[in-house]
Amino acid sequence: MAGFEGYRGASRRFLESKGMEVGAGAEVATSRGDEYRGIVMPRYEGSEGDRLVLKLGSGYNVGIEVDEIVRARAAEAGSPGGAAEAGSPGGAAEAGSPGGAGAAAPEGLPEILLLSTGGTIASTIDYRTGAVTPAATAGEITASVPELAGIARIAPRMLFSEYSENLQPEHWVGLAREIDAAAGKAGGEYAGVMVAHGTDTMQYTASYVSFALAGLPVPVAFVGSQRSPDRPSSDAPLNLAAAARLLASGKAGGGVYIVMHGNRSDAEAACHEATRARKSHTSRRDAFRTIGGEPAFTVGAGGGGVSGGGGRGGGGGAGEYRPRIRLDARAALVKYHPGYDPAPLEEAIGAGRYRAVIFEGTGLGHVGRTVHGAVRRAAAEGVFVGMTSQCIEGRVGMTVYESGRDLLAMGVVPLRDMIPETALVKAMWALGVAGENDPDGVERLMLENVASEISD
Amino acid sequence: MAGFEGYRGASRRFLESKGMEVGAGAEVATSRGDEYRGIVMPRYEGSEGDRLVLKLGSGYNVGIEVDEIVRARAAEAGSPGGAAEAGSPGGAAEAGSPGGAGAAAPEGLPEILLLSTGGTIASTIDYRTGAVTPAATAGEITASVPELAGIARIAPRMLFSEYSENLQPEHWVGLAREIDAAAGKAGGEYAGVMVAHGTDTMQYTASYVSFALAGLPVPVAFVGSQRSPDRPSSDAPLNLAAAARLLASGKAGGGVYIVMHGNRSDAEAACHEATRARKSHTSRRDAFRTIGGEPAFTVGAGGGGVSGGGGRGGGGGAGEYRPRIRLDARAALVKYHPGYDPAPLEEAIGAGRYRAVIFEGTGLGHVGRTVHGAVRRAAAEGVFVGMTSQCIEGRVGMTVYESGRDLLAMGVVPLRDMIPETALVKAMWALGVAGENDPDGVERLMLENVASEISD
Repeated sequence: MAGFEGYRGASRRFLESKGMEVGAGAEVATSRGDEYRGIVMPRYEGSEGDRLVLKLGSGYNVGIEVDEIVRARAAEAGSPGGAAEAGSPGGAAEAGSPGGAGAAAPEGLPEILLLSTGGTIASTIDYRTGAVTPAATAGEITASVPELAGIARIAPRMLFSEYSENLQPEHWVGLAREIDAAAGKAGGEYAGVMVAHGTDTMQYTASYVSFALAGLPVPVAFVGSQRSPDRPSSDAPLNLAAAARLLASGKAGGGVYIVMHGNRSDAEAACHEATRARKSHTSRRDAFRTIGGEPAFTVGAGGGGVSGGGGRGGGGGAGEYRPRIRLDARAALVKYHPGYDPAPLEEAIGAGRYRAVIFEGTGLGHVGRTVHGAVRRAAAEGVFVGMTSQCIEGRVGMTVYESGRDLLAMGVVPLRDMIPETALVKAMWALGVAGENDPDGVERLMLENVASEISD
Repeated sequence: MAGFEGYRGASRRFLESKGMEVGAGAEVATSRGDEYRGIVMPRYEGSEGDRLVLKLGSGYNVGIEVDEIVRARAAEAGSPGGAAEAGSPGGAAEAGSPGGAGAAAPEGLPEILLLSTGGTIASTIDYRTGAVTPAATAGEITASVPELAGIARIAPRMLFSEYSENLQPEHWVGLAREIDAAAGKAGGEYAGVMVAHGTDTMQYTASYVSFALAGLPVPVAFVGSQRSPDRPSSDAPLNLAAAARLLASGKAGGGVYIVMHGNRSDAEAACHEATRARKSHTSRRDAFRTIGGEPAFTVGAGGGGVSGGGGRGGGGGAGEYRPRIRLDARAALVKYHPGYDPAPLEEAIGAGRYRAVIFEGTGLGHVGRTVHGAVRRAAAEGVFVGMTSQCIEGRVGMTVYESGRDLLAMGVVPLRDMIPETALVKAMWALGVAGENDPDGVERLMLENVASEISD
C-alpha cells in the first residue's frame, strides 16, 4: 500500500515534503511536546482538518495537526512504538495477543468477560481497499484501549466476526448460551459481561439476551462504536471504558445495557436499558436513545463516576435466575401504511410462515380496514397478533377510536409502549418459550414485563 | 342519553346535586364572572380534573372547574346559547350550517378553501356509544373555531369522512385533483388551501400532494388534532387558527405544510414541511416533528404572528406549476431486521406485485446477506430498489461498509436522508410519472429534490 489516500491540502503537502506515504513508518514531534512513532494511516471520506493519522504500537490511533508538527522523520514501518501513549500496555498488548490487557492489569481488579461478535468496534481499515472490515479479535479490541487495564481485568473471547446486519436470531441464541455458561452462576468469576457488537442491530440482540437471561446475576453491557477504533475520531475507547466502569462499579446489580456516547461531546457515555433503546441516528456517536425515558446510568469520561438510578426493575439480580434460551423466529414485523398490500402477508400466514405478527400501526395502534382480512386469518390460524406504533414515542391506545376497537375485537393485543423492534424480538422469544401452538401463552408472556420492555 | 358518563368525584357530585345529567341543558356562572349556557357533555377515559364540560352554541366546548361554579341551573337542552363565547359567530355558525363562518367574516379578508377528509379534527363524540366518530362536516369544523372568522373567509367543503388509517392512495389522488382544480391557477380566488386530516397518515397524504402539485401557486396547510374538537382539551382550535394565519399571511409563497402544536404548551403551532414531517408520538399534541431540521414557520397563538424562514425551496410559488397527479401504488416499504424472512418479498416481486421496493435498512443503509436474493430478483425484474434507514435521523451512507457497497453493486439506490414513509410515497408517485417499465426514470425522479424531501 502506498500513496496519499484521503490526504488533501496541508496534510498531503506535509507527507509529500517528508517523502512519507500511507503505510510508512514515521516519528513525529509536536509543538505541544508530544512525540509519536507509528504507521501513517489512510484518511477517509468525511475526514476533517489537516491531520496526520498515525497508528501507534498500542493499536490506538492519533490524529496530529500538521501545523503543530515541529519534527518528523521516516521510521521502520514494521515496528511502531507506543512510547508516547500514556498508560499504553505497549508491545505486550499488541494486536493479536488476546488476553494481553487482562494479563497486564493488577490482580485486585474485578474480572470482566469481553465477548466480541464483530461490528465497527471490532473492525479495522483494510490497507489494500480502504474498506472497513470486521476483523479485529476481542484481544485486539482490549489492546486498543489502554485505559481498560486500569478498570478491570478483561478476559477477551471472540465469538463471531460479523457486521451486525448479518447477525441472525441463531447468533442471539449462541451468544446467550455463551453468557449463561460463563456468568450464569452466582458468585462466579466475572463481575459482568461486555459484548462488542455492531450498532446496526445491537438493540435486537441485546433485547433477546434481556429476555432469555432475565435475572442473570451479573450485568451485561453491549458496546459498539460508530467509527472504527483505528480512526482518530473513534468513539470506541470511551464506550469500552464506560462499559467496563459500569460493570466494575457493581452499581448495576443485573440487567442488560447498551453503552454508547451520551451526547455530542466526548464527556460521558449513556447506559440504556436494552429493551428501551433504539438506534436513532445513522452516524452520530450518540446515536442511541432510551425511548420514553432517561438512560439508566451515565458514566463520565476519563475516570468519571457511574451515576444514575439504574433500570426500571426488569433487569436481573433480585429474582431467581432461570434462563430461557428459546427462540422461534417465525415472527413478522409489519409496518402499516396507506397502500399497504395485505396479500403477501395473508398468504404467508396461510402458509404457516409466521406464528406471530407484530404490527407497527399508525398513531395509537391502527391499521386500515384493508388489513382486516389478514388479521382475521391470523386469528383463525392461532397466530399471535400484537400492536405497536410507528410513532415510536408514546403508548398504543386501542379503545379510543373505532379502528382500534375493531382490531381488539378481532383479537389484536395492544403492546402498550413496547417499541416495535423489541416487541418483534420478544415475540420470537415468547414463541420459543410458550410453543407455537399456544397463542394464549405467547400473549401472557408478551404482556408480562420481563426486562423493562414495558414502562407505561 | 342520560347518566354521568365519565364524571367522577367532585364533578359527579356536582351534577347529582343539581339534578343534571349528560345531554341536559345547563346555565352556569363562575367566580371568575363568566357565564355559559350549553349542553352537558360526557367525559372520557383519561380526562383529568373536576370539570364540567359544556358544549356551547358555537359548537366549541368549555371545561369549567366545578369549584369555581357559583350558580347553576337546568336549561333547555335543545337550544344552547353561545352568548358567553367571545367572538363566537353564534347561532349563525351552528354545526350543520356549512359556510356559516365564511359568510360571517368580513369581505376584506383573504379566502381560504377548507377541504375536510375526516380524522379526529372532523370528529365528534357519539352520544350513544361514547365513541369518537369522523362525522363532522367542514362547515362544522369552521363553526367550532370562532377565531377563524377574524382571520379569513373560510370556504368549507367535505371531501371524505374517514379516519386517516383508512385513507388510501386513491384518496390522495382525489384530494390532489380537488386542490389543483380549485387553486391551480395563479391569481385564483383562494389564498391557500387547508386540509383537515387525521394525523395517523397525514404525513403520507401531505407528501403525495407535495410531489403531485409541486409548484402550486398557493400554499397548502394540512391540519389535524390529537383530541376531538368537542373535548375541552382539544388542540383543534389552535391548529386550525394557526393554519389559517399561515395561509392568510402570504409568507409561504407555496409549499405543503403540516400545522400542529409546536410544543407542550398552547403557545404556538409549528408548520412542518410535509415531506420532512413525521408523527413521532402517539398522543401528544406536539406529536409532529421536522426530521433533520427545524419547522419552516411557527405561528403564535391568539393572534400571534407567523415567523420563520420558510421551507428549503422545494415548495412551489417560484417555478412553473406543472401538476403531475399520477400514481402507481405497487411499492413496498420493507423494514429489515434480524430474522427477516425474505421469501414472501421475493415471491411478491416475482409475481409482479411490486414495481418499487423501499428498504428501511439498518444504520447507514444495510440489510443482511439473507436479503440479497430478493434484491437481485428485483433488479432482474426491473423493480426500483431504494434504501432509507430505520434510524430515522441522519442520512444513509452506503460506501462506508462492505454491506453497503455490495448493495450498491446490486443496483440499490441510496436515498440520502429521505425519511422512509416519504420515500415510499414518492416511489408510488414516481412509478406513476415515469411508468412501471422505466426504473431509470424512477431513479432520476427519486434523486431529484422535488419538494424538500432531500435536505442533506
